[in-house]
Amino acid sequence: MKSYQYQHRVQYYETDQMGIVHHSNYIKWFESARNEYLRKQGISCQELEELGVLLPVIDVNCSYRQRTYYDDLVLIKVFIKELRRVTITFAYEIKKGEELLVAGSTKQSFVNKDFKPFSLQREKPQIWKMISNE
Amino acid sequence: MKSYQYQHRVQYYETDQMGIVHHSNYIKWFESARNEYLRKQGISCQELEELGVLLPVIDVNCSYRQRTYYDDLVLIKVFIKELRRVTITFAYEIKKGEELLVAGSTKQSFVNKDFKPFSLQREKPQIWKMISNE
Amino acid sequence: MKSYQYQHRVQYYETDQMGIVHHSNYIKWFESARNEYLRKQGISCQELEELGVLLPVIDVNCSYRQRTYYDDLVLIKVFIKELRRVTITFAYEIKKGEELLVAGSTKQSFVNKDFKPFSLQREKPQIWKMISNE
Amino acid sequence: MKSYQYQHRVQYYETDQMGIVHHSNYIKWFESARNEYLRKQGISCQELEELGVLLPVIDVNCSYRQRTYYDDLVLIKVFIKELRRVTITFAYEIKKGEELLVAGSTKQSFVNKDFKPFSLQREKPQIWKMISNE
Repeated sequence: MKSYQYQHRVQYYETDQMGIVHHSNYIKWFESARNEYLRKQGISCQELEELGVLLPVIDVNCSYRQRTYYDDLVLIKVFIKELRRVTITFAYEIKKGEELLVAGSTKQSFVNKDFKPFSLQREKPQIWKMISNE
Repeated sequence: MKSYQYQHRVQYYETDQMGIVHHSNYIKWFESARNEYLRKQGISCQELEELGVLLPVIDVNCSYRQRTYYDDLVLIKVFIKELRRVTITFAYEIKKGEELLVAGSTKQSFVNKDFKPFSLQREKPQIWKMISNE
Repeated sequence: MKSYQYQHRVQYYETDQMGIVHHSNYIKWFESARNEYLRKQGISCQELEELGVLLPVIDVNCSYRQRTYYDDLVLIKVFIKELRRVTITFAYEIKKGEELLVAGSTKQSFVNKDFKPFSLQREKPQIWKMISNE
Repeated sequence: MKSYQYQHRVQYYETDQMGIVHHSNYIKWFESARNEYLRKQGISCQELEELGVLLPVIDVNCSYRQRTYYDDLVLIKVFIKELRRVTITFAYEIKKGEELLVAGSTKQSFVNKDFKPFSLQREKPQIWKMISNE
């Protein structure tokens, strides 16, 4: 699977007094999309944590091109931009129909329950392959 | 200490497209106020958890009388309405100046890390006294 | 339509450090469910606002019986408990499989853009009928 | 005023099941800090909106270096990185004591109530000066 499209209906509680979606919510939608992507790859974020693999976010970039409104039905396209031994970077494109609303990326590191980074490729090669889609 | 007043400045991200504070946020302010109350009583929520005492919410009631707006400076008054062996109920009054905006209550149970309820009064009498303000 | 079942996958950002869903989120799920219910009845919350009908929440009750966890797939059943001329009360039952996790209700008033309450039944009888499912 | 330090006590509802602050919250703290900065400069975000100046965010960058925990008392330092005619970029450093936890920036455009960008410097020079601290 090269990419995954996560559908989201904009909720009332995600709007602000400008009448648009508050910008912090897109960061949450990124999370929803990438976690669903992982599940489709065969391993959920919950299973990863049970196997001792946490994925804290270490970097977020988000560029807002068009506003999103309550009740909009948007698609969040997610794909792996870079998979390294100790980090993974996802990229995102949020669209309404053909229109690109938001583009962004997140970088996460593979850490154990004590938040020590480790090489997922070396220590859990099967999971690494599953995620990398090799 | 019979009650505690927690001050909060309404944030932009707490508004919705009606131009008022979204109703779910008051539930969060209740939490901020009661946790600060506990700290003033001598034991923070964090210390309670380290001692094996979790306080999941089992009941929420909230009555919205007046709207709250971005930038409003509100006071959340919190006090213990009922302290039983295994549960604690806090009541809240949110005011802007003299005007009552919101009134509510929350009930929490004392549970251990496996979410088993227990008598705080019997098993941790010192904490129970500290909270009860006896 | 007597009731509507809204499905929700618990998101990572909805959890707290107790490892369970933070109690404030259920209030948001109530909103998602009732707004979808209204849409299925033929009028979305967005259309209502465009017609000058706002629905601010004036009362929330929520009773938490079981914890909900990240990745859980829950159903929020929503139905109208009481429809009066100027207020509407929805009731909710959140279930995972057969297990009842949370029960609650919300009361909203019909107000215009200046937040003045009015009788929806008298002033907009068609919408009132549409919502009431008569 | 070259910069402003906004103090924030980490709330329970800001944590996630990793036991740390969920990364989306820092974006909200950025907002709290910059809005307070503007108020200290003499013009609140609310007053700006009443004068027809909206400030939607068009870009966010955030780099997470250290985790933040419930109950932590953090300082969000905010300053203007770049002020152009139609956009403003704020930079942020979040610290706990001397330790840098998070660094980031946000870019906003000056738009009117129809979300049309305009030159704040030309159309509202007094506000522009007030913000720019010239």
